[in-house]
Amino acid sequence: MGIVVQKYGGSSVADAAGIKRVAQRIVNTKKAGHQVVVVVSAMGDTTDDLIDLANEVSPLPPARELDMLLTAGERISMAVLAMAIHDLGHEARSFTGSQAGVITDAEHGRAKIIDVTPGRIEAAIGEGAIAIVAGFQGVSQTTKDITTLGRGGSDTTAVALAVALKADVCEIYSDVDGIFTADPRIEPRARKVPRISYEETLEMAAQGAKILHLRCVEYARRYDMPIHVRSSFSEKEGTWVVKAEDVVQEDTMEAAIITGVAHDRSQAKITVVGVPDKPGEAAAIFRAVAEAQINIDMIVQNVSAAATSLTDISFTLPAGEGQTAMTALSRLKDAVGFDSLQYDDSVGKVSIVGAGMSSSPGISARFFEALSEAGVNIEMISTSEIRVSVVVAETQVEAAVNAAHAAFDLGSDEIEAVVYGGTGR
Amino acid sequence: MGIVVQKYGGSSVADAAGIKRVAQRIVNTKKAGHQVVVVVSAMGDTTDDLIDLANEVSPLPPARELDMLLTAGERISMAVLAMAIHDLGHEARSFTGSQAGVITDAEHGRAKIIDVTPGRIEAAIGEGAIAIVAGFQGVSQTTKDITTLGRGGSDTTAVALAVALKADVCEIYSDVDGIFTADPRIEPRARKVPRISYEETLEMAAQGAKILHLRCVEYARRYDMPIHVRSSFSEKEGTWVVKAEDVVQEDTMEAAIITGVAHDRSQAKITVVGVPDKPGEAAAIFRAVAEAQINIDMIVQNVSAAATSLTDISFTLPAGEGQTAMTALSRLKDAVGFDSLQYDDSVGKVSIVGAGMSSSPGISARFFEALSEAGVNIEMISTSEIRVSVVVAETQVEAAVNAAHAAFDLGSDEIEAVVYGGTGR
Repeated sequence: MGIVVQKYGGSSVADAAGIKRVAQRIVNTKKAGHQVVVVVSAMGDTTDDLIDLANEVSPLPPARELDMLLTAGERISMAVLAMAIHDLGHEARSFTGSQAGVITDAEHGRAKIIDVTPGRIEAAIGEGAIAIVAGFQGVSQTTKDITTLGRGGSDTTAVALAVALKADVCEIYSDVDGIFTADPRIEPRARKVPRISYEETLEMAAQGAKILHLRCVEYARRYDMPIHVRSSFSEKEGTWVVKAEDVVQEDTMEAAIITGVAHDRSQAKITVVGVPDKPGEAAAIFRAVAEAQINIDMIVQNVSAAATSLTDISFTLPAGEGQTAMTALSRLKDAVGFDSLQYDDSVGKVSIVGAGMSSSPGISARFFEALSEAGVNIEMISTSEIRVSVVVAETQVEAAVNAAHAAFDLGSDEIEAVVYGGTGR
Repeated sequence: MGIVVQKYGGSSVADAAGIKRVAQRIVNTKKAGHQVVVVVSAMGDTTDDLIDLANEVSPLPPARELDMLLTAGERISMAVLAMAIHDLGHEARSFTGSQAGVITDAEHGRAKIIDVTPGRIEAAIGEGAIAIVAGFQGVSQTTKDITTLGRGGSDTTAVALAVALKADVCEIYSDVDGIFTADPRIEPRARKVPRISYEETLEMAAQGAKILHLRCVEYARRYDMPIHVRSSFSEKEGTWVVKAEDVVQEDTMEAAIITGVAHDRSQAKITVVGVPDKPGEAAAIFRAVAEAQINIDMIVQNVSAAATSLTDISFTLPAGEGQTAMTALSRLKDAVGFDSLQYDDSVGKVSIVGAGMSSSPGISARFFEALSEAGVNIEMISTSEIRVSVVVAETQVEAAVNAAHAAFDLGSDEIEAVVYGGTGR
């Protein structure tokens, strides 16, 4: 009798009806002979509502207290879910992150898990109960204060518990049927991928695919914990995220050249115009951005115009950090001596990802040709071993995804994706 | 520099504005040179909303999970209150009941405090911070599960913490200025009592006065912790609840004969009609009621009519338990052989309370005369050392309170009470 860890996001438990549906699903898993541990996010908009409440009394609430406040969200959803399971005649016990042994560092709002000691969870499932654990939260090893794990925290809680409990699988439920060859909302022929490697999933997530957070995939990869990504609204098999050796194409017995197309509309592009083309100038610019804690993604430096010895440097970054970066760079204007700053948040990034890419020459060329034929103008390019990304105008993102999807023959003949809207945390 | 424990009820922290007002008040206490520990209830209707949510998924939610759910309410209010204090430039740290060391038995929904180990609270205030503690909750010593303390739980948390911390005083804030000689809503000449003994307060609370819960007064009496009952909406001195020796009338240097008039409209009366007047019948009736966990209050047995050897037995009980009691008694009809059951929830209880009563003869007579002159018909009577209570028709409760208040000259010349509505838990 193996252990199954299931994680349900906020959209799956948005209201009483959703909670009852999830409860039935959990009971079905239990009846199928598994020991079941469930990690749950806060219901629907609870977290946003709590943040609004905090902002009503304080423009910059202390991080310790914000964590104390936000963890009330999962406390509510997990207790109500346990009640709903109880109502179906099965015993369920809810546990806070602290009670479940999720030990973190003391970085409020973005704590890292440093240990998981799930003694109470093991006892509960050993006694035949279903254990419900609050996602997204833990307790600081040093201060004993309640912490939250930040973005992707609930997924990470689920994987970390699965590893600590030596579970057979960690099932991550959302409102999407699995990981698709492209976002089904913009590519109707997108096909669900049955199996995908941790590495490809990491690239897909990093390039904007919203199914799984980087952090939880990284954790799963480190400990080789299979993740089954599936929808809480259907009974279909989803996508298995496993180690690369276990991903084999049925026909070729080799990895697919291209597994999927990811896109990301949340990026912005900053161009520093007229930078003197001499050593140290680019370094000064990126040091200023780094000191402002901005994560930059792609960088392009144009060849300098010989007549002026001036060059333009462009880079992309999350649009949410654009204002901070512009402010930090403005302060450098006189010291570096550049002409001006340009900010453009109407850009998007489109990436093709595939583990077979490194052994198949000509992939980039085929990608760029397809974009060209579709009339898509490439602004920037970056690559990794298993990925090629381009930045294009935001209005051309959809055309670019469709072109790439067709060029690598990723589509199915029928429309199988059902997207229910919204994502949890 | 003494320790002050303050407790704020749900009506005082019903919204962001209330929380900010309370925060300012706490900061003022801190600035006055005290170490401050605050116990807070859930905001406004939060608890009711959470119960509604629970009932949406389960008609009878398991007690352990209901406690887990309800304790989210104080988690929210305490974190937001800490933020509001932080926003005023003072450090505040919130603590759950468990973190504050409120150790209870495992009786979910009505746990009893068995120990308080406030090490983290002492550390926080020792470092100059204001400690905010969730009322109404604790952690079970045996199961380590989260518990709630039931009715009066937040007041009791405050007194228990004050005792454990050796505080100078436990201040209980609500929306009323203190304890009054009668409910100001029905007796406009009601006067705030400056000092009252634990024993009188217990009688007032037991007889329906809603300011303090029995349980917290009992705890304060056992450890002689002074309680200062006051309003969070004004700066006025409230009522000090202290030991009897410390309650002295300024004019007579003796306890007041009558301290106040309490009333209670939440009672119902059951009459068992035509009970055979032989040994054991009354016992069978009250055993049935006791087995149904019903708390009965007053009992009256009429003299049996000689011709029939049948008697009527009446008793009062909380109206909320009326249905359960009627069902339990109905089952006895054939075994005991009574004629019928009558249920009347349009009754009320009016009590006069005063420590000086026992040494002043004629108090009952004066009370009954006053009621008679006001045209109030007495249905039942009970007394203690420091109390006389009568049951009257609900429509006559107000007249009875007014008559008693006037008969014992309790009123002030001016209207001083301000009632803001609502009570916390």
